[in-house]
Amino acid sequence: MELSRLAKGLGGSVIREMFNEALKMEDTISFTVGEPDFTTPRPIIEEACRCWEAGMTHYTPNSGVGELRRAIAEYHQEDLKPDPDSEVMISCGATEAVQMALFTLVDPGDEVILITPAWPNYFGQIAMCGAVIREVPAREENGFIPDPKELRAAITHKTKAVILNSPSNPTGAVIDRDTCQAIAELLAEKGIYVIADEIYSRLVYGEEAYTSITSFPGMMEQTVYISGFSKMFAMTGWRLGYAIAGAEIIKNMTKLHENGASCLPEPSQLAAAYGLRRCLPEIGNMRESYKRRRDLICSLIDETPGLSIKKPEGAFYAFVNAKELCERKGLDSRGLCMDLLRKTGVVTVPGSGFGSCGEGFIRMSYATSDEAIVRGFERIRAYVEGK
Amino acid sequence: MELSRLAKGLGGSVIREMFNEALKMEDTISFTVGEPDFTTPRPIIEEACRCWEAGMTHYTPNSGVGELRRAIAEYHQEDLKPDPDSEVMISCGATEAVQMALFTLVDPGDEVILITPAWPNYFGQIAMCGAVIREVPAREENGFIPDPKELRAAITHKTKAVILNSPSNPTGAVIDRDTCQAIAELLAEKGIYVIADEIYSRLVYGEEAYTSITSFPGMMEQTVYISGFSKMFAMTGWRLGYAIAGAEIIKNMTKLHENGASCLPEPSQLAAAYGLRRCLPEIGNMRESYKRRRDLICSLIDETPGLSIKKPEGAFYAFVNAKELCERKGLDSRGLCMDLLRKTGVVTVPGSGFGSCGEGFIRMSYATSDEAIVRGFERIRAYVEGK
Repeated sequence: MELSRLAKGLGGSVIREMFNEALKMEDTISFTVGEPDFTTPRPIIEEACRCWEAGMTHYTPNSGVGELRRAIAEYHQEDLKPDPDSEVMISCGATEAVQMALFTLVDPGDEVILITPAWPNYFGQIAMCGAVIREVPAREENGFIPDPKELRAAITHKTKAVILNSPSNPTGAVIDRDTCQAIAELLAEKGIYVIADEIYSRLVYGEEAYTSITSFPGMMEQTVYISGFSKMFAMTGWRLGYAIAGAEIIKNMTKLHENGASCLPEPSQLAAAYGLRRCLPEIGNMRESYKRRRDLICSLIDETPGLSIKKPEGAFYAFVNAKELCERKGLDSRGLCMDLLRKTGVVTVPGSGFGSCGEGFIRMSYATSDEAIVRGFERIRAYVEGK
Repeated sequence: MELSRLAKGLGGSVIREMFNEALKMEDTISFTVGEPDFTTPRPIIEEACRCWEAGMTHYTPNSGVGELRRAIAEYHQEDLKPDPDSEVMISCGATEAVQMALFTLVDPGDEVILITPAWPNYFGQIAMCGAVIREVPAREENGFIPDPKELRAAITHKTKAVILNSPSNPTGAVIDRDTCQAIAELLAEKGIYVIADEIYSRLVYGEEAYTSITSFPGMMEQTVYISGFSKMFAMTGWRLGYAIAGAEIIKNMTKLHENGASCLPEPSQLAAAYGLRRCLPEIGNMRESYKRRRDLICSLIDETPGLSIKKPEGAFYAFVNAKELCERKGLDSRGLCMDLLRKTGVVTVPGSGFGSCGEGFIRMSYATSDEAIVRGFERIRAYVEGK
């Protein structure tokens, strides 16, 4: 009796591998998990408890409660302007929304283009649909922005969808307006669906306004826009994401969603709606903290021999070029991260876990305290200098 | 640009169809959704709020928090005796656990045997894996208990798994010990996985002790046992289920789960653990209520011309034989349920939504108040008598 080929063939996430390895040690400093260190704003928690105590313990509509769908529609009234009744679906985190979008759009054997380095779970999600991954590398020399020409070259008659994740996990890259426009035109020309995972879109630190692929004429007709509350309101543990797309896509995503997560707790949904209506200033406060930490970690990386970084424009990840250090230690990036962990207790993630072009890099999440960043780099510095 | 064949090919749930149709009307009496009318016991709600207020808003391990896995292991210390560290996974409702079990065990093209009438979402879940459904009818004349001989005849070299749901949604049938043993021996002989969805196992009303397929020697090695808190503690809206299986299966289910629901809120999990440790007597109280309602609805069905029922032994569904009434009205069961809804506001679910052998039946959930049951049957009676 054998498990499925899917189960046997799929590697676990390298992020979780490092996380679990670190659990065996004491006195670690973690730059691993992509999670705000903030607690959810107090008013959101209080709203949830009010709803639980009022006895809201029953099933909700598969597409989400109306109040949250309406709050999301209002939040997007300047850009996506979705119809809350037919064009919004609440999901179990943005992760599950990506999964439902893939199942709704992609057949087994179809090709899905992934800009890599990419979030490891996309690989598993595409495999679960039986689709084939086609990697298009985003290169460090281009600031990890994908090249539309390389994207065009990767398209075949089997290409059904592209996953675009801007700002990017793991590189922090934010696709600029011109590139975004070129990609939009290409995908419109070719009739290829876009899964636009913009979960980090509120965490952008540059001068230029953020550009969404959805902002180009007609693109929303072939796009599933995905976001959620995990990064926006530090609500990772609540598991609340959402998708916005055309009514036919949302109807089908909801139908498939019913076979898994199915629906979400009413108190969580009403609390998120409350957050959208009352707590938006919190986002700005958190963004300022992340920006300060980004500047801090980048300056510490630059001071460390053997490491370098292109300053990331968004999200809360530093994708550190460690090629020189790898070479000096005679290790690949996975070996380097393991060695660093075992000798110093500093937990990072090897870039190779985000696609083959990530080899030689390490990902460091800076959604942690300034103090942890400083202490972590004291240890890294000692490790690099062989102390 | 086309949606996936999966999305295009999959019908929506007939339960949701009736539910949505009923939303258009006023003054309905619903026997539709399989959901306790009870609110979650107050101490469980209070424990959850305590955890939210303590700031437990972060990611949890993909397999679930240790405290809940341990509480589940203790709850099952007399039967399944799972190792809480490696043989238990917490899921987003039992639904998602079934889905992850299927992805872990079944390849595209494999056959999965389903005893029908069956819960509609199993059909969608099997389709999402690209597997082929093979229906084995459970016949009314056998009390909706599957016949092991028919099960044997349905097995081919492609059969990879059987879904067993006892007590059954929609029939309320509880597989007796002898049949269970015959099925266990057959599946052990053939080396076929069992997905044992026993979410209703605490709601059994007969004299005989409940028998789980897992209780036969060696069966646990080829079984994924699935249950949850929705029916046990009236926690449907919380979305908390669990799977128990061998370590290799749980490891792979958890890996796949990470690509979707991923993890569950810590307060919900700790509240469920609290329930298992402190609120078990609540289950008995609820069971007594359901048993009383079962007896009430069965007697009302028996008094209604054109309807009949084999008294269900478990869960909270009456699978009513309406063949005579269908014939008299010149309608199939879907037509009958729609006609009944439009003329009386009574919401039921056509048996044909649970597999082709369900035609001529209607499902009525009696997880509703005694008063609603009585008022509903006043209307049904008037409808039947053509008033």
